[in-house]
Amino acid sequence: MTNAGPGRPRLTKQRRPGPTAQAEILDAAAELFTTKGFASTSTRQIAEMVGMRQASLYHHFATKDDILAALLEQTVTAPLELANRLAATTEPAAVRLYALLLFDSGQLMAGRWNLGALYLLPELRTERFSRFREERQQLRRRYRELAAAVLTELGTDDESRAGLPFRIVETVINERSDAEGGGTGTGEQSPVLLAEAGLRVLGWHDAESLRAQAERLLAATRSA
Amino acid sequence: MTNAGPGRPRLTKQRRPGPTAQAEILDAAAELFTTKGFASTSTRQIAEMVGMRQASLYHHFATKDDILAALLEQTVTAPLELANRLAATTEPAAVRLYALLLFDSGQLMAGRWNLGALYLLPELRTERFSRFREERQQLRRRYRELAAAVLTELGTDDESRAGLPFRIVETVINERSDAEGGGTGTGEQSPVLLAEAGLRVLGWHDAESLRAQAERLLAATRSA
Repeated sequence: MTNAGPGRPRLTKQRRPGPTAQAEILDAAAELFTTKGFASTSTRQIAEMVGMRQASLYHHFATKDDILAALLEQTVTAPLELANRLAATTEPAAVRLYALLLFDSGQLMAGRWNLGALYLLPELRTERFSRFREERQQLRRRYRELAAAVLTELGTDDESRAGLPFRIVETVINERSDAEGGGTGTGEQSPVLLAEAGLRVLGWHDAESLRAQAERLLAATRSA
Repeated sequence: MTNAGPGRPRLTKQRRPGPTAQAEILDAAAELFTTKGFASTSTRQIAEMVGMRQASLYHHFATKDDILAALLEQTVTAPLELANRLAATTEPAAVRLYALLLFDSGQLMAGRWNLGALYLLPELRTERFSRFREERQQLRRRYRELAAAVLTELGTDDESRAGLPFRIVETVINERSDAEGGGTGTGEQSPVLLAEAGLRVLGWHDAESLRAQAERLLAATRSA
């Protein structure tokens, strides 16, 4: 066996996508957690699926909970970072909210596994997942701030609708679950559809007009 | 021990709410499935929680899957029945859709346990749950038909938004899960808020005006 790349030589051919062993473990765990269930999956099964020894897996993650926490954080880190960057811009709130909805629903749709389906696990209520819960709570607060600012622009001081755009993004999870579970998904959800819906629930009537502005803002925010 | 009511005398005092032993089993199972997880719950634990012998539980439900199927069907039967009744009325589609959204989100909010959180279980993809999946699919079709009719009334022939009202109702599940899991829920979701949101995502601008008509229609449909 020759050691072609950096790091240790692998005992077996790479079975899972990912640039690192850690990424491969996360991919295998994501498949097992979302298709078999979290409680029904063991770290031994994850190691087998990657083609590594269980001891090697423990080198990267000490517990099954640590793997779950890493997967959950993947879904929140990027949108939270974007939301924080958007908060520093001077664009109208409606454009910023559209941009966040577009990006966040896009990333939830694009992931290889429907990780959002793990949000409802009762296991997440323990102390181990407090960091994930806190990050998700911060993201939710960012959505609310933007939505409240849009409502103000619309001349409403009733903020009861301000929680809806965050929930609109999460509908991706149920749509994917239905599509993967029995072919009942229609495949018609798109980031643009959900971004417009997120503005419409606030009472914004001309949501289409925001798209070009939001896309320019996203491009600028990414390259900044 | 005296046998005060009809049926067999109970060995123990009733521990769970419900008019029948079957209802008590379902309530205990709902608590365990939603707070501990489906895979992590055994029928022995359910029987213990009700205060009955495991053998008595098997008299009512042969398997844990049968209990889950009965719980899931509880969440779909009533809205599907209402949707079928509404389909036979001549009210405007917007009023009928508002009425269905109001009722369905109300029942998902009012249930003692957040049963919708079980919709994402990978276990549901098996043949055993095909009846539940079929009923939920029928309900979803009813939502789509009404939403498509509303879009036609609004002069749009693009039906891509027609799947959104069904998903708006399901946001109750995530809101409840967050509220129960760590106090992040705001408690501001209400059936009226979601019914209006379900109309707004279709592009309906004056959703508030539908409320009184929808409530009259619901009252008439229930007493029919």
